[in-house]
Amino acid sequence: MRASDPTGLHRVLDDAKDGHGVLPQAAQRLDTRPELWPDEVRVRVEKLNLDAASYRQLERTHTASDGSVDHAGLRAEVLEIVATRGKMQNSETGSGGMLVGTVEEVGPDSHLGLAVGDRVATLVSLTLTPLVIEDRLARWDGRGEQVPCAGYAVLFGRSIAAVLPDDLPTDLSLSVMDVCGAPALTARVVGEYAARSSYGVTVAVVGGGGKSGSLSLAAARQAGAGRTIGVVPHEGEATRLRATGLADEVVVADARNPIGLRDAVAAAGGPADVSVVCVDVPGCEGGAILATADRGTVIFFSMATSFSAAALGAEGLAADVTMLVGNGYLPGHAAYALDLLRAEPAVRALFEGRLAT
Amino acid sequence: MRASDPTGLHRVLDDAKDGHGVLPQAAQRLDTRPELWPDEVRVRVEKLNLDAASYRQLERTHTASDGSVDHAGLRAEVLEIVATRGKMQNSETGSGGMLVGTVEEVGPDSHLGLAVGDRVATLVSLTLTPLVIEDRLARWDGRGEQVPCAGYAVLFGRSIAAVLPDDLPTDLSLSVMDVCGAPALTARVVGEYAARSSYGVTVAVVGGGGKSGSLSLAAARQAGAGRTIGVVPHEGEATRLRATGLADEVVVADARNPIGLRDAVAAAGGPADVSVVCVDVPGCEGGAILATADRGTVIFFSMATSFSAAALGAEGLAADVTMLVGNGYLPGHAAYALDLLRAEPAVRALFEGRLAT
Repeated sequence: MRASDPTGLHRVLDDAKDGHGVLPQAAQRLDTRPELWPDEVRVRVEKLNLDAASYRQLERTHTASDGSVDHAGLRAEVLEIVATRGKMQNSETGSGGMLVGTVEEVGPDSHLGLAVGDRVATLVSLTLTPLVIEDRLARWDGRGEQVPCAGYAVLFGRSIAAVLPDDLPTDLSLSVMDVCGAPALTARVVGEYAARSSYGVTVAVVGGGGKSGSLSLAAARQAGAGRTIGVVPHEGEATRLRATGLADEVVVADARNPIGLRDAVAAAGGPADVSVVCVDVPGCEGGAILATADRGTVIFFSMATSFSAAALGAEGLAADVTMLVGNGYLPGHAAYALDLLRAEPAVRALFEGRLAT
Repeated sequence: MRASDPTGLHRVLDDAKDGHGVLPQAAQRLDTRPELWPDEVRVRVEKLNLDAASYRQLERTHTASDGSVDHAGLRAEVLEIVATRGKMQNSETGSGGMLVGTVEEVGPDSHLGLAVGDRVATLVSLTLTPLVIEDRLARWDGRGEQVPCAGYAVLFGRSIAAVLPDDLPTDLSLSVMDVCGAPALTARVVGEYAARSSYGVTVAVVGGGGKSGSLSLAAARQAGAGRTIGVVPHEGEATRLRATGLADEVVVADARNPIGLRDAVAAAGGPADVSVVCVDVPGCEGGAILATADRGTVIFFSMATSFSAAALGAEGLAADVTMLVGNGYLPGHAAYALDLLRAEPAVRALFEGRLAT
């Protein structure tokens, strides 16, 4: 038997190249045996949450010319993917999703801090999680990203799962965990600026009215920001964000317009020491850079961020700013985000409003 | 007359959208009038250095089916681009290049620190630099990226130009300036770790045998690294890098193989507190993340870096690492890199060797 590797390398079934395999996320096929390596955890699955982009792609594939969707065919394709690859990964979008379940076995060398019976959500992607479906998804009609499911999944030594809290509805917790990297990293960065500044730290959150944005505004304030600025795309959202009190200033600007964004943040008390980009539209790099003070930091959480646009944009503008790739993982990020939601009724109301629609 | 903006917005001739214009880099056409706004500088141009990717694209476009290249046609296209757009920007690659010239006028409000008569290289891209060619490129035969040129260019309030030193050949200085952002940012980050660590800081430079890589190794050591590790793709380059003494350890690994890179750096004394990625091949994100210690930093200088691969990779590996978009600009970066070259004969020999081939 292969020795276990914390990355899950030992479960990759692809042919090794150059004497080394690929990582589970890049692999074609994973070993789904239920027996655990010593550092693994097995979870009894209750529900899959498919990634939204992946579900939309599957839906398009199974839409007939008259616009009707073949939901049975869509379900069959999900079953086929998981049976073939040993994981749920849409080959078109590359994305997966997450799952909810209950811990049923913990290897003796696991460091994930989980116990048998814990109800958990996995915070690593389904694209790297060994998964077996045992009920042919009989309770799912192929409609929507929420997939009731019986089966099991395996977590590696180096993985992330968060225990679902008793005091919050599951969907609300999942909705928060989905974006919990943003407030955690925002808090860390703002805290570092606050610790070494004698003046108040100014934080601008682009997309401050959204899920990750509102949590980041709350995190910035808790981490010691002297002034928080929420940037939103139109007046309706500005009114809503102002009502929450989460930001000291709320301004309307198109984040794709560099000069517009710069001037709007400046008018609200900027430039920002820390700018946080939480809007999933391309072309926000230049504006975020210009809205940020010399020696400030831009944190990019949007997956629409272009690496080269950020790198060349800062150089072209002679901007001495630190630019961070928004890492979705920090230790304790899920618990921190849930605590923010509990502490800030306005954040909770915003999340509940989104779940209701 | 429009008021000047440090970004050069006042020279954008595109129609304004939403009351705001685009930045010069994204603009279709720039105003090339020789009269300066108060914060501008005009440079008498001596030579253009076309971006390598741009030149290769132009060459392909002007290659006939028999393989012959129409260099006159290539030259005519460069003239046409500059005449039409008021800047040199290849619409296919989006890239430009840089230029060498002599300062001929300095606006009273310029903060670039330049004086009339200074021989300078512009370190912002030609894609955002107003440019007029006055000699129809008569001294250029269309071959190669080095373009002798008579004409003028304009630098904005927020721009970068470096005075060419007297003690180094121009081509050597340009070759160093081309990658000078990497050593400057490496030195800053390594210095921050060194200042707060009681143990020695370990730095791994992936692509340590190249231009930006060798400078980054020298910068890391100067900034206080306790151990430097150079990662190169094959034994031949390892032998050359070992001979320079720039790295404490030199290891061979394919940077696209995550486990291979992780294990190679670990065997050389890693994981690294700071990993610097200087190789221009896609797929190095996972390996760089795995080669880096908990709470370490990865600096991505490669333009082949994928933002989403870095963000999702770190999350999938539960890696608490800071990931930086390698900003090509830091104050004083050109002078710092030239000083490294002067101080390290091995770096200079490496650069001279590359120029000779």
